[in-house]
Amino acid sequence: MTKGRILSGMRPTGRLHLGNYKGALENWVRLQDDYECFFAVVDWHALTTGYENTSEIKDNIREMVLDWLAAGLDPERSVIFVQSHIKEHAELHLLLSMVTPLGWLERVPTYKEQLGQLSGRDIATYGFLGYPVLQTADILAYRADTVPVGEDQLPHLELAREIIRRFNFLYGSKLPEPQPALTRAAVLPGTDNRKMSKSYGNYLGMSADAQEIRQKVHSMVTDPARIHKTDPGHPDICAVYAFHQVFSGDRAEEIGASCRAGAIGCGECKKNLTARLDEAVGPIAERRAALAARPGLVDEVIAAGDARARRVAAETLEIVRAAMRI
Amino acid sequence: MTKGRILSGMRPTGRLHLGNYKGALENWVRLQDDYECFFAVVDWHALTTGYENTSEIKDNIREMVLDWLAAGLDPERSVIFVQSHIKEHAELHLLLSMVTPLGWLERVPTYKEQLGQLSGRDIATYGFLGYPVLQTADILAYRADTVPVGEDQLPHLELAREIIRRFNFLYGSKLPEPQPALTRAAVLPGTDNRKMSKSYGNYLGMSADAQEIRQKVHSMVTDPARIHKTDPGHPDICAVYAFHQVFSGDRAEEIGASCRAGAIGCGECKKNLTARLDEAVGPIAERRAALAARPGLVDEVIAAGDARARRVAAETLEIVRAAMRI
Repeated sequence: MTKGRILSGMRPTGRLHLGNYKGALENWVRLQDDYECFFAVVDWHALTTGYENTSEIKDNIREMVLDWLAAGLDPERSVIFVQSHIKEHAELHLLLSMVTPLGWLERVPTYKEQLGQLSGRDIATYGFLGYPVLQTADILAYRADTVPVGEDQLPHLELAREIIRRFNFLYGSKLPEPQPALTRAAVLPGTDNRKMSKSYGNYLGMSADAQEIRQKVHSMVTDPARIHKTDPGHPDICAVYAFHQVFSGDRAEEIGASCRAGAIGCGECKKNLTARLDEAVGPIAERRAALAARPGLVDEVIAAGDARARRVAAETLEIVRAAMRI
Repeated sequence: MTKGRILSGMRPTGRLHLGNYKGALENWVRLQDDYECFFAVVDWHALTTGYENTSEIKDNIREMVLDWLAAGLDPERSVIFVQSHIKEHAELHLLLSMVTPLGWLERVPTYKEQLGQLSGRDIATYGFLGYPVLQTADILAYRADTVPVGEDQLPHLELAREIIRRFNFLYGSKLPEPQPALTRAAVLPGTDNRKMSKSYGNYLGMSADAQEIRQKVHSMVTDPARIHKTDPGHPDICAVYAFHQVFSGDRAEEIGASCRAGAIGCGECKKNLTARLDEAVGPIAERRAALAARPGLVDEVIAAGDARARRVAAETLEIVRAAMRI
């Protein structure tokens, strides 16, 4: 039996935080065992909302790929590449644009939502409206049959399936409709209990050093009603406890119980978490430092991945052009 | 002084009719003397309204390029190429899509008009909305400074200028905003006095043979109120006279006067026109037959043009990517 094929991508945001690692990257590392994986730095996607400031994209690509490698993506097994280096994505995007009804794009739930949220930026562009078409091209270029997604991205994947289905219907082709592999990832809040985000400054780097870990854990928001160590705490509204649930395994339950009983103070609880994070993050930080010390490594990984990606994408475009008789 | 550079294109509709020749192609032939010309078969554009039936695109490209050569486009002087062979158009289209406000596209006068006219076809697609972006990419890929346009296409060119201006503003580049070279071309009606169009079946081929010319002229609609040769005619509502104005030069005025005076009958008038058309179209048809007899010629012309186009477009994309820092 041949392995399924996965396509997934991340926008080049630079060094990743622990939320990115726990929410997606750690899952990618696991997927390598069971799938043929294509992992793309989707730099063209970064333009859909960030076209006005592109100065850091190239650096961000390198930093992010270093994080990918440090986390355990294996460039021998998986294809690690940069979207904009594979021109077939642009051609396929254009061809798919011809068969994609405008209404399908206007109805994507995140479209109007994001328009509202990012209203400070001028993103009501043609490219922003079309980014689900570009995503579809990303997936189809590798004829991926599986796409790891969170619940919130299911509508995009459904749209990709519909576009590919319509293409197959119009041109009599049999290109695969990708299936979702639902990622039930741990959700890490930021140190202030809001969503972890670089723009909020409430994040912990996925390759943070011991000092950063100590400082960030120290700054974490706990139960504000708890003044004395013996006050009963409410771990469910505590960022420290949210981290324990992810990083302290079986011990998390016990920690929660002690907190509720007023048997453990926030200081000690944070000290424990610091130790757990040192254990979890330390090896990643070490690997990253070792990888970063090898000049040219990231460029080589990307160049090799690009070449492998290009071969597959070129095959796909031959199939697509033949089907369309163009 | 360096020559200006022109980009113009036609959708691959197959063999051209006399309206295409008089309305655009004859002008292209002249432009070769004063400009460095890039002439594109814009097959991707054909998909914006014709994605549902693509079976004839490849044949149509070959037939149309034969007509171009027969009319006098010179592949030594001008770059004759096929849009879809130059992937840079797709990449540039994608990049420009990021900076093009949706509202600019929705406001293009022809957009809603065409949506209405072609309502039988399912063309409310993302690609159809974006075809002015693709046109802008076509022009910008060659850094053309001049685009021959009819009055009706001025809004599209203005939009292309605005998109390029916005790109220059955002990224500090100095890419040329193309200027219109207004084509004041003769407008030939169809044989039934409606707009000449393949879909109406009222056209005369630009390389028609003598028999086709005779038949089509014979079928032309004249002044319906004119029963007898001696009735005064109304040349302004007569298709035959419209053709005389284009093909009979100085004699057209005299013909009109004779018609108004009831001094010349429609039969004789058509016979005269047939002779004029034989003179005008005959040499084109002969050249076409000679060119069509050379196997491989069209493929060679296109391959050579593609290579020249690709060089220039690749340079442009280097400039564009550097400006965008991507």
